[in-house]
Amino acid sequence: MSLIVQKFGGSSVANAERVRNVARIVTDCYRAGNQVVVVVSAQGDTTDDLIEKAAEINPKASKREMDMLLSSGEQISIALLAMAIEAEHCPVTSLLGWQAGFSTNSAYGSARIKTVDAARVKAELDNNHIVVVAGFQGLNRYDDITTLGRGGSDTSAVALAAVLHADRCQIFTDVEGVYTADPRKVKNARKLKEITYDEMLELATLGAQVLNNRSVEMAKKYNVELEVLSSLTKAPGTIVREVTNVEKMLLRGVTKDTNIARISIIGVPDTPGIAFKIFSKLAAKNVNVDVILQSIGRDGTKDITFTTSADHAETAVDVLRTSISELAGKQILCDEGAAKISIVGAGMESHPGTAAKMFEALYEINVNIQMISTSEIKISVIIDKEDADKAVEAIHAKFFPEV
Amino acid sequence: MSLIVQKFGGSSVANAERVRNVARIVTDCYRAGNQVVVVVSAQGDTTDDLIEKAAEINPKASKREMDMLLSSGEQISIALLAMAIEAEHCPVTSLLGWQAGFSTNSAYGSARIKTVDAARVKAELDNNHIVVVAGFQGLNRYDDITTLGRGGSDTSAVALAAVLHADRCQIFTDVEGVYTADPRKVKNARKLKEITYDEMLELATLGAQVLNNRSVEMAKKYNVELEVLSSLTKAPGTIVREVTNVEKMLLRGVTKDTNIARISIIGVPDTPGIAFKIFSKLAAKNVNVDVILQSIGRDGTKDITFTTSADHAETAVDVLRTSISELAGKQILCDEGAAKISIVGAGMESHPGTAAKMFEALYEINVNIQMISTSEIKISVIIDKEDADKAVEAIHAKFFPEV
Repeated sequence: MSLIVQKFGGSSVANAERVRNVARIVTDCYRAGNQVVVVVSAQGDTTDDLIEKAAEINPKASKREMDMLLSSGEQISIALLAMAIEAEHCPVTSLLGWQAGFSTNSAYGSARIKTVDAARVKAELDNNHIVVVAGFQGLNRYDDITTLGRGGSDTSAVALAAVLHADRCQIFTDVEGVYTADPRKVKNARKLKEITYDEMLELATLGAQVLNNRSVEMAKKYNVELEVLSSLTKAPGTIVREVTNVEKMLLRGVTKDTNIARISIIGVPDTPGIAFKIFSKLAAKNVNVDVILQSIGRDGTKDITFTTSADHAETAVDVLRTSISELAGKQILCDEGAAKISIVGAGMESHPGTAAKMFEALYEINVNIQMISTSEIKISVIIDKEDADKAVEAIHAKFFPEV
Repeated sequence: MSLIVQKFGGSSVANAERVRNVARIVTDCYRAGNQVVVVVSAQGDTTDDLIEKAAEINPKASKREMDMLLSSGEQISIALLAMAIEAEHCPVTSLLGWQAGFSTNSAYGSARIKTVDAARVKAELDNNHIVVVAGFQGLNRYDDITTLGRGGSDTSAVALAAVLHADRCQIFTDVEGVYTADPRKVKNARKLKEITYDEMLELATLGAQVLNNRSVEMAKKYNVELEVLSSLTKAPGTIVREVTNVEKMLLRGVTKDTNIARISIIGVPDTPGIAFKIFSKLAAKNVNVDVILQSIGRDGTKDITFTTSADHAETAVDVLRTSISELAGKQILCDEGAAKISIVGAGMESHPGTAAKMFEALYEINVNIQMISTSEIKISVIIDKEDADKAVEAIHAKFFPEV
């Protein structure tokens, strides 16, 4: 008998038919002799509908009241899923975030889980019940309802799996697993059987948004074995776990991120401390900087180029223009026509040929590389956005030749 | 400074405009220097929509999960009302039933309030906040959400007013108060300035459904002063309280109840214990019997006639036919064409002319009286349903002559 935590997102429970489908997946798992805890999000459009209702009444509503409002969404979906499981003649109990023991800090709208007291969940499991838990929500020290923010239900599921020492945490999505590239765009994209937490984190950061990062970090920290799989097909998904044998270079995937901006400052005085000044001011405004390139100093000046997410571009340029006296009058360029293409895989560092192979693929299709960045498990290049799709395809074909 | 509890039903918060209207009533009361606790129901059709969603998935859903589902309705309305109050720039906190300290028994769907621990509500009031509380819901000993059943929000409001020793509990409805007869039907129907708890109870039982009976009983028990008033007009409503001066006969109103059935058993053996047997069997099946008439015994038999609500008629006839051996083969008549017309007012007992005056009014319009029942504050007659409206009008005109 295994203890399985299953997580279903909003689209998986969007209507009565899908709720019944989820109930069948859950009860199949239960009937196979497992203990099952299910974490669900709000139904499809519920959250958007509630946000609209709130906006009509008060566009500047407090975050506390927004959390009070939005957390009703999961309350509806856990009750409906529990009813669907009852209809399958299995014993079930639905629990709200606070009933399942989720304590969070008080950051309404983006709260972090502090502890999970799973006593009630355990008692229900001991009683042979399937337990349906509202994801995305908890209670703060004032006994007020909080929501966890984006992707919060993934985090709820992993936290619960960690506390319960679950054998596996299954994250059901609308894709069948993690692929070597976007399967809708790249021919021959392959589903990975397994992948490490770090690789998953890099893939997520790089735009392959299957799993929320916080949830993967938490899974790594508590060694929770994850499986990403589809709620619509019965195919096995991708397992995320710590793999010990990484002797062989294993390329996990090719990703692109087109939501970036490349910002260049021309003719920065070549004096000590200027880079520190620039990037600390940016950090103070919550601008996350990714790849940084600095030209060799010449004539007492140098050029600094960096990338950031497109959402932060305007803020970044504003900070550079107004709060750093040394940059007064300097030319600042912002290019939103760039894309970042990355390859991810453990053991890359010890296989020096990998970068060359990637660059060769780009050379063969005549794509110019603007910037390069490498880490232990990742190589990224910044190229023109227009070339992004063909670059992904070429790199993928290079590493995963057609069989 | 007074402490006022205000209760608004589902139609009062049915859409954004009405929610804003309620927010204005609440903040006007707050700005006038009062402490204000607001109890709200789910928005207009929310409950029906949720019931429909549940029925689509599982028509036989457990009551526990139904309560989990339905209680999300008030959660939405308290959050939205709090947001509307924020938009009026007043400090406010919304609280769910359990956050406001409502403990109930475990009868899902029709739970009864056991205790209210108002510590959190008091703390918010001390902090000068308006407190918006979800009516209709509480928590049982297992920390599971329960709903109070019909009219539950009235009861929530009165219970909170009792525990907080509120100066007044205002029940906002879509009528301006309690009238001497249905104002839509009876010309010259007058709004009462005040009325006692017992009179209010009689009026409610008799079909003038302004306030839920349980809430009036609770208000009487804890001496909570009620006011019934409209959320749409600014007119003063009707105060419900214990009035000490009842020297004068005060007729409070004329009501009709057409949802009744008159059941007759012909030729019951005139032996001791038979009436006991009949009415205890009926009670065991939860059939509430109202007016009872027993003919004088003749030839060793008698006739027993009683009224019950039309909803119970079928059950009542069934009980009489199948579970009482003495009635085997006896003729049982069920007449659903009857109506009960009542006049209610304290001090009626000491004014013997009242009944005569009522009968006179009926005689004048040629209406035959089938049964009569009297209590300290009420006189009821059973008549033909077809005569109900004109009977109410005639009796009302007799007691409240046009001025």
